[in-house]
Amino acid sequence: MKVLGIDPGLRRLGWGLIDAQGSRLRHIANGVCESGEGSLADRLLSLHRQLTALFREHAPDQAAIEQTFVNKDAVGTLKLGQARGVALLVPAQFGLPIGEYAPNKVKKTVVGVGHADKRQVDHMVKMQLPGVEIAGPDAADALAIAICHAHYTKAPQATVRA
Amino acid sequence: MKVLGIDPGLRRLGWGLIDAQGSRLRHIANGVCESGEGSLADRLLSLHRQLTALFREHAPDQAAIEQTFVNKDAVGTLKLGQARGVALLVPAQFGLPIGEYAPNKVKKTVVGVGHADKRQVDHMVKMQLPGVEIAGPDAADALAIAICHAHYTKAPQATVRA
Repeated sequence: MKVLGIDPGLRRLGWGLIDAQGSRLRHIANGVCESGEGSLADRLLSLHRQLTALFREHAPDQAAIEQTFVNKDAVGTLKLGQARGVALLVPAQFGLPIGEYAPNKVKKTVVGVGHADKRQVDHMVKMQLPGVEIAGPDAADALAIAICHAHYTKAPQATVRA
Repeated sequence: MKVLGIDPGLRRLGWGLIDAQGSRLRHIANGVCESGEGSLADRLLSLHRQLTALFREHAPDQAAIEQTFVNKDAVGTLKLGQARGVALLVPAQFGLPIGEYAPNKVKKTVVGVGHADKRQVDHMVKMQLPGVEIAGPDAADALAIAICHAHYTKAPQATVRA
């Protein structure tokens, strides 16, 4: 089961792809989509094109996305919401199941505590995906989301094996 | 110049299409896209499909969208942001220019005052588009946005004629 994790953001959108066979995880690829300096519509279009290309190239079986943290910065929430709308749209266009996980749940699953910092997430992602080279903090978060989804969603093959 | 106005919303998204030749406006069509009861991703996909079908069918030259009113309801702002991301994406995918207008600017342009209520907007839209039948308040707002955009963006033909 190939899982593409997405850490949504308007300026930088992290993604991470893993293969999960039961509890065995393998890193496939990770990276960051940058939306550039155009108008808001152009930036959303750029994210949509880059994500669509990723889904075409890697043909994941499932997608997982971080549940957006809503805070008091309404303008930031709106920007993130617009990027997240596009990030949810693409796997839906490919007809894929989409898991949504709160940041605390992702950290608790990957690190063991809900209040882990970025350094700990990075460390545990590297432990669970030996040899991985991570494209930055957004990509590390996206890999953590994919690992979290793999943990809660067992692949059909794994179920048969168990 | 055909202008498609959009009043974004996750549950109900209003749209209104007009033809503008200089200051002469003509109503073409209006309506509401409803996103149904599915998951968030399914609802965004439904809005994307309905909007894409509208742009294909009517081939507008320009799009106009309401600038989202950011308020203290962060959850509502996030929902609206996700729908707005999809609403901005579609005209960008068709390569169209997109005008964005604050609600107060739309009201001031269409009614004459920035604090007009829905009834006044509805009335003035009907005055400016004789014979129009409006599919509801969201569609009325979308037509008002299209009228506002036509006011600030003169069509090339109109410029030549003037």
